[in-house]
Amino acid sequence: MRIVKLNAETKKDLLKNLLKRSPSNFGNYAETVQEIVDDVRDNGDAALFSYTKKFDKADITAENVKVTQKEIDYAYTQVSPELLDVIRKAKKNIWEYHEKQKQYSWFDSKPNGTLLGQKVTALASVGVYVPGGKAVYPSSVLMNVMPAKVAGVEKIVMTTPCNAEGEVYATTLVAAKEAGVDEIYKAGGAQAIAALAYGTESVPKVDKIVGPGNIFVALAKRAVYGHVSIDSIAGPSEVMVLADETANSRYVAADLLSQAEHDEMASAILVTTSEELAEKVSVQVDKFIDELSRKEIMRKSIDNYGYILLADNMSDAIDAVNDIASEHLEIVTANPFDVMTRVKNAGAIFIGEYSSEPLGDYFAGPNHVLPTNGTAKFFSPLSVDDFIKKSSIIYYSREALEAVHTDIEAFAKAEQLTAHANSIAVRFEK
Amino acid sequence: MRIVKLNAETKKDLLKNLLKRSPSNFGNYAETVQEIVDDVRDNGDAALFSYTKKFDKADITAENVKVTQKEIDYAYTQVSPELLDVIRKAKKNIWEYHEKQKQYSWFDSKPNGTLLGQKVTALASVGVYVPGGKAVYPSSVLMNVMPAKVAGVEKIVMTTPCNAEGEVYATTLVAAKEAGVDEIYKAGGAQAIAALAYGTESVPKVDKIVGPGNIFVALAKRAVYGHVSIDSIAGPSEVMVLADETANSRYVAADLLSQAEHDEMASAILVTTSEELAEKVSVQVDKFIDELSRKEIMRKSIDNYGYILLADNMSDAIDAVNDIASEHLEIVTANPFDVMTRVKNAGAIFIGEYSSEPLGDYFAGPNHVLPTNGTAKFFSPLSVDDFIKKSSIIYYSREALEAVHTDIEAFAKAEQLTAHANSIAVRFEK
Repeated sequence: MRIVKLNAETKKDLLKNLLKRSPSNFGNYAETVQEIVDDVRDNGDAALFSYTKKFDKADITAENVKVTQKEIDYAYTQVSPELLDVIRKAKKNIWEYHEKQKQYSWFDSKPNGTLLGQKVTALASVGVYVPGGKAVYPSSVLMNVMPAKVAGVEKIVMTTPCNAEGEVYATTLVAAKEAGVDEIYKAGGAQAIAALAYGTESVPKVDKIVGPGNIFVALAKRAVYGHVSIDSIAGPSEVMVLADETANSRYVAADLLSQAEHDEMASAILVTTSEELAEKVSVQVDKFIDELSRKEIMRKSIDNYGYILLADNMSDAIDAVNDIASEHLEIVTANPFDVMTRVKNAGAIFIGEYSSEPLGDYFAGPNHVLPTNGTAKFFSPLSVDDFIKKSSIIYYSREALEAVHTDIEAFAKAEQLTAHANSIAVRFEK
Repeated sequence: MRIVKLNAETKKDLLKNLLKRSPSNFGNYAETVQEIVDDVRDNGDAALFSYTKKFDKADITAENVKVTQKEIDYAYTQVSPELLDVIRKAKKNIWEYHEKQKQYSWFDSKPNGTLLGQKVTALASVGVYVPGGKAVYPSSVLMNVMPAKVAGVEKIVMTTPCNAEGEVYATTLVAAKEAGVDEIYKAGGAQAIAALAYGTESVPKVDKIVGPGNIFVALAKRAVYGHVSIDSIAGPSEVMVLADETANSRYVAADLLSQAEHDEMASAILVTTSEELAEKVSVQVDKFIDELSRKEIMRKSIDNYGYILLADNMSDAIDAVNDIASEHLEIVTANPFDVMTRVKNAGAIFIGEYSSEPLGDYFAGPNHVLPTNGTAKFFSPLSVDDFIKKSSIIYYSREALEAVHTDIEAFAKAEQLTAHANSIAVRFEK
């Protein structure tokens, strides 16, 4: 794994290289996706089922699009008791963490007869997209559904593509049931997103769509944004380890690879003040790649987007952390909590040598849907916040309004909005 | 003003009619805007100044693009002491309300040696766009800047177009200074948004761009979204009044028009259970239009997007309120706080007959940047939340990880991610 001296120049090159992985570079599928979205919006089920036939080779109709209780019961027989047990333990931890994110309505009243406040309301309905494809991630189902559940969303709908026989992955169904999904539909790709955004005869319209997906899913989410809300469009996974000479090189190397194995576009970066650690990690990464199963993916990801950055001092290293704003950051230094206080930008921060990143992927409780590609500078992890919305509350008594009515009229007139001024004045005409 | 009987049919027609006002129907400027954005991204100041020459007819260079202290001092001489006084009063109220929205970092530690938490960090820099054009809205400057200020954003940059002489509105400058803007640049349109998103030699790059603007500004914000964060794209203004027979028809009519005067595309809707009120308001609206200055705008907005909906009962009326999800909602009924508890969807809720909507536009404190076009079902008012972001914090001691390491490894293996399992296992090898 390459070792690069950290300086302004190398940092700039690295940031430019990482940006190549941006989900903005989507190529020219936008038009195709827009056509699919418009077709499903205009023609409902007929269009949805026809795309399912075309892309998933499955004969889906209004009769079998919705997953039945029988299918869910069968799915439970296909999942090992051990996995079910871990899913339930993870669910409990995720639930407990997200409970603490709940926000409450508040008001502030004053004895002059005014009340101002903010009312928190859960979204009425949410759609969760779960990809089919090669990999099955029950953890992703939990992470997308639980915050909506904790927020109090009344109706949670899931869509996921089926195979040519009309079957859906058993672990997906079990994870969905455990997480508390209300309805599951067999639909994938841009057509599923359009169905959730506009509703069809069979699939209900929702207020917000979340969940990962391929480029067609991402573009469809972008196309329906504004008509419904969406989560942010995630790019490839990233991990950054900030370490000093106290770090264990085997642990660091293993953690870098735990993200690198996700995807050839994934990025794994170590920034360290220790030349010795840099060299040991570089060697250990290559060793582990040979030993582990997803070696081709890891090799490409490490070669293209992996870096060991050697920093002159901890201050430069922390600056690099903030400039890169990684999805996951591990801090493995002599005093990691102190270093954490200096970190401004990261999706999730793992502190100390036993807080390895996969602990957060599956188990600890915080969400694993995190801002990627430098967007941790302005975006947050998926959370209960994503499934609530707020309304301002304003109450003034006659007396309270009377005390300020000339001020408001003056402001309105300064903005040349006479009907605004009139709506105040009319209440105090003699 | 038309009176329509509220039923499923008329509600559907109304919703369809209102959606015509959606900012999604932008026509075909997207390509032009993308060209401007790309040009400014690639060519910086040179492109920015050339578009300023083309669209604003002004000779702007690196020497005069930034508003000077001298220009600000002069602006103060152009604003009346009365307006300055009202701006300061409004600022105080806005500050106090937004202070209550602040969110704090938290952590939860357990004696087994685990700590989970959520760290709140203000965005480092924000750009606020302030339109030039016909109307000057100092209130809009306050409403966009103050929540960023309260959140603790270190650098707040404003851009606003200048006239052919290179001058900016005095009230805009004064409101900006009062609100605490750090730097002001003379730039407008899509080119200003691109400058804020990518930075030029003169204009700094920011993390998030907020503020209203015309179609070019809106499309440019959409084009840079993901590279930076943006606020939501606002549609035309809306007010909905929910009233029973206790409401004063003059007040209701005046309040409907206070939004109708904003824009020919604005919408004003009364939903009421009282036929008498419906008829009185209908007559009074026409009378007021004749008396007030912005009569042409109000006439068009009321004729095209104004409705008086006559409901059979309060329950139907409240359903209509929730389905329409208006930007502003006034509740003028015998028991307005009770009705408020039943309202799920509205940007801001004004309670009782003295809480007229312009009170919120200028003065009370809650933000006037609110979700429009039915998006109050899933979006919130602009708030301190928009200028912070969160990072998850995860710490496990060796003992804590040891207790669960086999569970996490099992989950990772179930997802076929062996490098994930390895990163846990390596810490407990014999």
